[in-house]
Amino acid sequence: MGDPAGIGPETIARAWDARVDRALPPFVAVGDRRAIARVWDGPVAAVSDLREVADVFSGALPVLTVEDAGEIVPGAPDPDGARCAVRALELATGLVRSGAGSALVTGPVSKAQLYEIGFTYPGQTEFVAERCGIARANAVMMLAGPGLRVVPMTTHVPLADVPALLTVELILAKARVTARGLARNFGIEQPRLAFAGLNPHAGENGALGREEIDVMRPAIAQLQAEGIDARGPLAADTMFHGRARADYDVAMCPYHDQALVPLKTLFFDDGVNMTLGLPIVRTSPDHGTAFGIAGRRLAHPGATIAAILMADQAATHRARQSLPA
Amino acid sequence: MGDPAGIGPETIARAWDARVDRALPPFVAVGDRRAIARVWDGPVAAVSDLREVADVFSGALPVLTVEDAGEIVPGAPDPDGARCAVRALELATGLVRSGAGSALVTGPVSKAQLYEIGFTYPGQTEFVAERCGIARANAVMMLAGPGLRVVPMTTHVPLADVPALLTVELILAKARVTARGLARNFGIEQPRLAFAGLNPHAGENGALGREEIDVMRPAIAQLQAEGIDARGPLAADTMFHGRARADYDVAMCPYHDQALVPLKTLFFDDGVNMTLGLPIVRTSPDHGTAFGIAGRRLAHPGATIAAILMADQAATHRARQSLPA
Repeated sequence: MGDPAGIGPETIARAWDARVDRALPPFVAVGDRRAIARVWDGPVAAVSDLREVADVFSGALPVLTVEDAGEIVPGAPDPDGARCAVRALELATGLVRSGAGSALVTGPVSKAQLYEIGFTYPGQTEFVAERCGIARANAVMMLAGPGLRVVPMTTHVPLADVPALLTVELILAKARVTARGLARNFGIEQPRLAFAGLNPHAGENGALGREEIDVMRPAIAQLQAEGIDARGPLAADTMFHGRARADYDVAMCPYHDQALVPLKTLFFDDGVNMTLGLPIVRTSPDHGTAFGIAGRRLAHPGATIAAILMADQAATHRARQSLPA
Repeated sequence: MGDPAGIGPETIARAWDARVDRALPPFVAVGDRRAIARVWDGPVAAVSDLREVADVFSGALPVLTVEDAGEIVPGAPDPDGARCAVRALELATGLVRSGAGSALVTGPVSKAQLYEIGFTYPGQTEFVAERCGIARANAVMMLAGPGLRVVPMTTHVPLADVPALLTVELILAKARVTARGLARNFGIEQPRLAFAGLNPHAGENGALGREEIDVMRPAIAQLQAEGIDARGPLAADTMFHGRARADYDVAMCPYHDQALVPLKTLFFDDGVNMTLGLPIVRTSPDHGTAFGIAGRRLAHPGATIAAILMADQAATHRARQSLPA
């Protein structure tokens, strides 16, 4: 559910409302049941075991309650709510790790609130990675909309730091995890990775910067030698329109805004964040807690629905691959 | 016409084909007439004076011929063609400076070819600025599509150089020219300028970079004190989707790809480049020479048509403003 004072509870409830129209698989909300009741009038079914979910799902939203969120006021986060969000994340991650659940979809949390209660991870992704025994550097954030997947190879760092962070090693690590992740989660056996250049016009053969020549081309050549379909570096400004997007399965971008600007410009209401490189499936709606509209029944459930559908698709692909041939 | 071996001649001719459907004002192609004949079978009318244009326009594409483009082979640029492109640019600029023409629309040129023949300007924009007696720094490139205008405050420089180039002075200069330009060319008397942050999430209050705090906020405060409606810095990734774009008239972006990625992602086929800060109206289709498809009758005239319409709109606004009250 993420932060109980954010829009997470409402988007989950409204996703349940759309279960038939959008053909959603059974899911269970994990968090304080009262957070749902505050913002939604539909039927809730308390469950204590994930095996109950499939039976109750058609008639009520199943909730696995994590108590003690304190006084819940939509739009007014507090430390009790942040603690509840962490317990819900821990419980849900454990259930998926154990196989009781087939995929994890995390709701939006407030990082400021989490840091205040002593949460020592940069975000939920790193927490989940550690619980799965995966090094943070090997958990790759991919954002996806209906017609575009992007991987920012650096994420939440100042722009001035990006050129030095963009090393051959970083590119190789991100690309290998991404290529494996697209095969494993989406059944794309030979995914096409298109790299955006760091500089305008991908550096124009060195006239506008040398990172493409010194760093990106050697990394791409190495990936090609490993059998990965890596292309580029391409001029970023001409690789995201409709016809260009048909030429690749994922855009690998040196920095945050180069990846997130086209994704959110095109697919603001239904962007999904998926973590690649984990032993479990984990997705998330690509938006924040939106405390400003929480409790006002204005939240759009599109991204949560898309995150549930993508998680289900990935879990199905993985299950198929693990069957004996 | 731009480079006679590029798609400029073809897009102009195909714009003439669309003159009725798109309600285009009379225009004249300036360049070697043979470049048009090579790629188009329609009627051409040689003119020697711009006063003839209005009379012939409905029945033929008026051409003011600049001779000596040499042997013209679409897709195969050469120095003779580049020299012809420069002469055409010089002639057309002079005609608009003198008032004989009301606006200048420049076709795509090959910078590599221009440099080879000793052209000492970075591009056509700087050439036109100098012919107009305007310092290069005060000629501001704005890109526009049907639902978005963007100004990259730095342009063709390595990304690593951008943080140091983004000074208070640069922001003030670009914003003042932009605000005046939107009033003068589009009649937007109090234009809303939305600034994109340099860093992801606009720096998150300094956690992801300090340029927003140290440079951008003081510049924006100064602009506001001057009566300019300046907003931000905003997180770049959430300012370009449809609802967000309705809140401003132009996005002011610290670097090339931040401005050009959303513009070309949304409006790839009809983006227009307009130079603000000049005494004349100058627009350009926002694409290159496309030598790869030149002569194959595949070029899309959408951007040229949009550039002609925007030039006409701007010239009309300027003429209205210069009338006595």
